[in-house]
Amino acid sequence: MTTDTRLTSWRPGPARDSIVSFLDAAAALPPVERVAVFDHDGTLWCERPSLPQLDFAIDALASAAAADPALRGRVEYAAALDGDVAAIEGMGLERVAMSLLELFSGMTPVEFDHAARAFIDSARHPTLGVPLRHVVYQPMLDLLAELRHLEFAVFIVTGGGTDFVRAVSHDLYGVPPEAVIGTSIAYEFLRDDDDQPVLRRTAQLASVPNEGAAKVHRIQAHLGRRPILGVGNSAGDREMLEWACAGDGPGLALLVHHDDEVREFAYQGEAETFAVDEPIVDVGRRLGWTVVSMADDWATIFPDSHFPDSRDRGPLT
Amino acid sequence: MTTDTRLTSWRPGPARDSIVSFLDAAAALPPVERVAVFDHDGTLWCERPSLPQLDFAIDALASAAAADPALRGRVEYAAALDGDVAAIEGMGLERVAMSLLELFSGMTPVEFDHAARAFIDSARHPTLGVPLRHVVYQPMLDLLAELRHLEFAVFIVTGGGTDFVRAVSHDLYGVPPEAVIGTSIAYEFLRDDDDQPVLRRTAQLASVPNEGAAKVHRIQAHLGRRPILGVGNSAGDREMLEWACAGDGPGLALLVHHDDEVREFAYQGEAETFAVDEPIVDVGRRLGWTVVSMADDWATIFPDSHFPDSRDRGPLT
Repeated sequence: MTTDTRLTSWRPGPARDSIVSFLDAAAALPPVERVAVFDHDGTLWCERPSLPQLDFAIDALASAAAADPALRGRVEYAAALDGDVAAIEGMGLERVAMSLLELFSGMTPVEFDHAARAFIDSARHPTLGVPLRHVVYQPMLDLLAELRHLEFAVFIVTGGGTDFVRAVSHDLYGVPPEAVIGTSIAYEFLRDDDDQPVLRRTAQLASVPNEGAAKVHRIQAHLGRRPILGVGNSAGDREMLEWACAGDGPGLALLVHHDDEVREFAYQGEAETFAVDEPIVDVGRRLGWTVVSMADDWATIFPDSHFPDSRDRGPLT
Repeated sequence: MTTDTRLTSWRPGPARDSIVSFLDAAAALPPVERVAVFDHDGTLWCERPSLPQLDFAIDALASAAAADPALRGRVEYAAALDGDVAAIEGMGLERVAMSLLELFSGMTPVEFDHAARAFIDSARHPTLGVPLRHVVYQPMLDLLAELRHLEFAVFIVTGGGTDFVRAVSHDLYGVPPEAVIGTSIAYEFLRDDDDQPVLRRTAQLASVPNEGAAKVHRIQAHLGRRPILGVGNSAGDREMLEWACAGDGPGLALLVHHDDEVREFAYQGEAETFAVDEPIVDVGRRLGWTVVSMADDWATIFPDSHFPDSRDRGPLT
């Protein structure tokens, strides 16, 4: 059997080999066991230099502040509008993010969906010079295609906002909204003047942020089955990746290592974000995960057709 | 166009007509809008004379009490073991049900799944004299088949326990575990002696019981899209059925009316359970829902092949 037509954006090597071995083993399992979970930011698309969802919120803030300059009087909003990183770090990103949630309070699910789609459809990546919707990782699209071929159930399990990711998940990855599990906002159930039911966003989280062990809790609550493939890139994905390998049968944990300064970004930021001692790449190597070097293992980073002028346009290997 | 091959267990009449009209309208919608939600107990299968899940818990209690007679000392357990309806009503069913949850505390998801399946595979309906897995409603199986033919996304949104319904949903209805949204138990994330992650059930609910407006909240949280078909049978389904009809396009609310004392049961118990003034059948008629008379609209109640000696075995109309 030849595997030449699979995973063409992955360079030959141990990472690709471990994926191919896993896919072959999974093909022999009962379909109900074929479940895969993917983190989103930094795993399926680029999260640097800033989280797209944060840019979306700041974009909404800029529009709101243009209509109502008094919003600038709020310290969180002034720091966000000015991109004042020192001020934001001083207050804590969480406080700023929570204040930004208030901008969307009162929206119906459909209104929020339209706002998020409008942003995604027009926004450009701040440094790569391409539309934001083009900074998805081609090797992950290739992996998703193989999983679909094997009829895997595929879920996105993200620390990002559930509603924001749902607005883009089908267009970008073919993942329907019900297969996105993220940090969720609480909704209010109301009745309009005609006594019809209405849902409106609040500015409160429905539960804790979806990181760490919370991802495993939410996978159980939402899916009721354990994944056998976990894909992530940060310390917030650790428990989810361990969970994917905790069964008796085939299990694979893939950790994306951002080590390609030329074609994407080189960073390992989870020490600050998650206050852990051991970098996640070291954890992954210690636990026997497949650590994916973007520089070495990926022939292409972004979809070729989306990057007519891109640097990573060379022939596929 | 002939519709003769569709919904053969439904008798010709206004209920069947409204379903056929809805299916025809839904076929013209974009696939993403084709979402259906079904209640479980009393909607997809028989919930009388006692809830199957309650019988499952009492069965587990009987086994536990045989091994440890001291359990009888607990008033909730004594009442449950004796089927002492007056005592149970005196304490409140919720208190008894919560005490029964403790029997499953500490189980992993897989252990609970095996226990629930073992019960379902061996239990018989207490009065209909057939295996419990055979008391599903054939007209609902026919409707599910039509929805699948139209590539609807189908979800079970139940007040019953999520894990219990997930154990049976695929076998009985072809609905995978991730498409079941019920009342959920909180899990504990632990590590075993080898530092491997483990989930274990607690005896606490993860959130409020999944009835009434909670069903709409959970639909939004889990699906991120609004259904256009809602099917239920009790006051706990009211908001969900209203939600299915709250859009601008086609929407159908189907309410099963248990009015067939001969072939199933005749009851309208929601006044006691949900403390509402207006019976749900009256609500449904007032709001323009399709109220389904089991006696008049269903040619067959249960799957024929499952009931070789059943009373409802007559030729289909």
